[in-house]
Amino acid sequence: MRVLVLGGDGYLGWPTALHLSARGHQVGIVDNFARRGYDHELGAGTLVPIFSMKERLATWRRISGHHIEAHIGDLTDAPFVDGVVERFAPEAVVHFAEQRSAPYSMIDRNHCVYTQVNNVVGTLNLLYALAEHAPDCHLVKLGTMGEYGTPNIDIEEGFIEITHRGRTDLLPYPMQPGSFYHLSKVHDSHNIRFACRIWGTRATDLHQGIVYGVQTDETTLDPQLATRFDYDAVFGTVLNRFIVEAVIGQPLSVYGSGGQTRGLLDIRDTLACVELAVLNPAEPGEYRVFNQFTESFSVLQLAEHVARLSPKKTTIDHIPDPRVEKEEHYYRAAHTKLLDLGLKPHLLSDTLIESLFHVVEKYQERVDLSAIPPTVNWRSQHSSLPTVSSAE
Amino acid sequence: MRVLVLGGDGYLGWPTALHLSARGHQVGIVDNFARRGYDHELGAGTLVPIFSMKERLATWRRISGHHIEAHIGDLTDAPFVDGVVERFAPEAVVHFAEQRSAPYSMIDRNHCVYTQVNNVVGTLNLLYALAEHAPDCHLVKLGTMGEYGTPNIDIEEGFIEITHRGRTDLLPYPMQPGSFYHLSKVHDSHNIRFACRIWGTRATDLHQGIVYGVQTDETTLDPQLATRFDYDAVFGTVLNRFIVEAVIGQPLSVYGSGGQTRGLLDIRDTLACVELAVLNPAEPGEYRVFNQFTESFSVLQLAEHVARLSPKKTTIDHIPDPRVEKEEHYYRAAHTKLLDLGLKPHLLSDTLIESLFHVVEKYQERVDLSAIPPTVNWRSQHSSLPTVSSAE
Repeated sequence: MRVLVLGGDGYLGWPTALHLSARGHQVGIVDNFARRGYDHELGAGTLVPIFSMKERLATWRRISGHHIEAHIGDLTDAPFVDGVVERFAPEAVVHFAEQRSAPYSMIDRNHCVYTQVNNVVGTLNLLYALAEHAPDCHLVKLGTMGEYGTPNIDIEEGFIEITHRGRTDLLPYPMQPGSFYHLSKVHDSHNIRFACRIWGTRATDLHQGIVYGVQTDETTLDPQLATRFDYDAVFGTVLNRFIVEAVIGQPLSVYGSGGQTRGLLDIRDTLACVELAVLNPAEPGEYRVFNQFTESFSVLQLAEHVARLSPKKTTIDHIPDPRVEKEEHYYRAAHTKLLDLGLKPHLLSDTLIESLFHVVEKYQERVDLSAIPPTVNWRSQHSSLPTVSSAE
Repeated sequence: MRVLVLGGDGYLGWPTALHLSARGHQVGIVDNFARRGYDHELGAGTLVPIFSMKERLATWRRISGHHIEAHIGDLTDAPFVDGVVERFAPEAVVHFAEQRSAPYSMIDRNHCVYTQVNNVVGTLNLLYALAEHAPDCHLVKLGTMGEYGTPNIDIEEGFIEITHRGRTDLLPYPMQPGSFYHLSKVHDSHNIRFACRIWGTRATDLHQGIVYGVQTDETTLDPQLATRFDYDAVFGTVLNRFIVEAVIGQPLSVYGSGGQTRGLLDIRDTLACVELAVLNPAEPGEYRVFNQFTESFSVLQLAEHVARLSPKKTTIDHIPDPRVEKEEHYYRAAHTKLLDLGLKPHLLSDTLIESLFHVVEKYQERVDLSAIPPTVNWRSQHSSLPTVSSAE
């Protein structure tokens, strides 16, 4: 199948492109290298070294014999998006190409506006390009479980049947996102659902949980195929932070009580889920939502799991929560649709956590401890960020 | 009270500014004249002549003795928004300053992206400016009943209590907007609710129905105080279109079956509702929604009402619906919160419709018949608009 992977240079986009290529699909990548740019801006970086797109693609071709073509450009550039969609003629588009950090979107007004405009306009341009140049193409869009927030009822997959004053309807699930980034994904979801309704677009919105892991069947074939490992306070995820803190011998930094519960999944399951969505497309005009995670954990449970396996004696620190969020709440979210399509989950195992210890130990000298403490506070309109410029 | 009216040169912003000024509030207007710009772009215009901001303000000062100050600039210009909010120090901001036409947002990609960026970024800049420079100020934001769409259950005011699998929560009402414009208002609503939660902003989101009428206590004091009357297919509203068609002696053009049911209200009630919201502010951190309409009618009911009162023999034509919408549907929406605050509605009377006939008859020679047939089709990505440029 002809598949375009938007954001194909990023943490998940790159391994997804490799995985689909390995499975025999004709893959094209679109990227503007914005993610590498954020590293420069923040003075931060991936713990696992990554290579240039040119080196990545050449290595992949040498090892696998498969060619992936890269289109360098920005989704907010409408003529660029039209041109790529028209020339590549994708049967599926996997859309990772958004600013994906909640703290980044909360730095200040500029970062908030950038995140919402970048994500919303990029997706609008894509919807128009598909409607005009590839109306039968299936859009597989990365959303987030964070769109739902933490309601006091069970979370369903995108829609909920509501009976109210004696009448019943199946309606979009109410959304309570917790950052300007998460809000941008809710805006996208509404826009995509509308495009399906008026233009007959096919779309699958993958409401993904927090992804952990860096090793896939393809990224481990060669160091030049590696993907990112982010542990900093802006782009890092909570499990990565705990792993790095454990290896360094620092207390694990839990924000607040740690009762915040989230859905998580293994990076290999992300790849499997995306492929399942691609192989089982939505119908014309259908907007469907799959909740893409395999297990739920509280932040404190994750910390305790890491501390228990840590090679060094490890304690847990509770630091003030820089976010505005419930620290204790009900959380139960449906996630059966991808299982029904055949997903075989890799659950969070001691082995996986130990393999992450090994990854971090290997690159331990690259750890920048100053990147770990939270710098962005939800309650402030101007977080003082340790950017390259402000550090000068 | 010190009140800033954003979009104070528009159809409703201008009469609102006059009304608040007449009631003794210190009023400032913010506008970038975008609405007058759309007239130039579309080669269309208001049936009732309107005067320049300079003439309007001078006339108001002469007649009332009240001074209204005007700040000319764009809400997407963040330093401008900061400066106005800081200098004016408003106790309330009434925010009309958005692109407000559904067909305009559906013309093509450029108009879609413009509408969403203009509306969302303008409101984000405002939220940041208020949080930083006027944290106790009450934001009164104009939303639309169109955010809800046409669910098969009763519409509540912003939130709905949902019982699901034995648990209950009060959640944001699920939104099903019907155009890229209506989507922009849903995006705003989510962003504003979030600002209330993290920064303690006070906000009232007025989900307004379709407004009819041009005459208020203040606009009728002098022709130079008049407000707009739009009847064209892009910015005109359905009742205005029917009135013009009846006066000209053309069949009334109903889109599809005409079973589309909407909430409506008199322009004098808009002014009263906004003032009630201003005088009864939301609490710090509170995001509340008032459904701002007084009666529901189907499009066909409106056509029949106009036809019955028409001075000329009038027929009703059903033309293909250019929109993607349900032509027959359930519709029952709560609207008690503004009544509870003391709203005394002006219901749609024969007298009001007859007064609109008189307005149109007075300016009949200004009617441009070519502006009436629908030009924007929801199913197309490129509507061929009779713009000034394309007509050349």
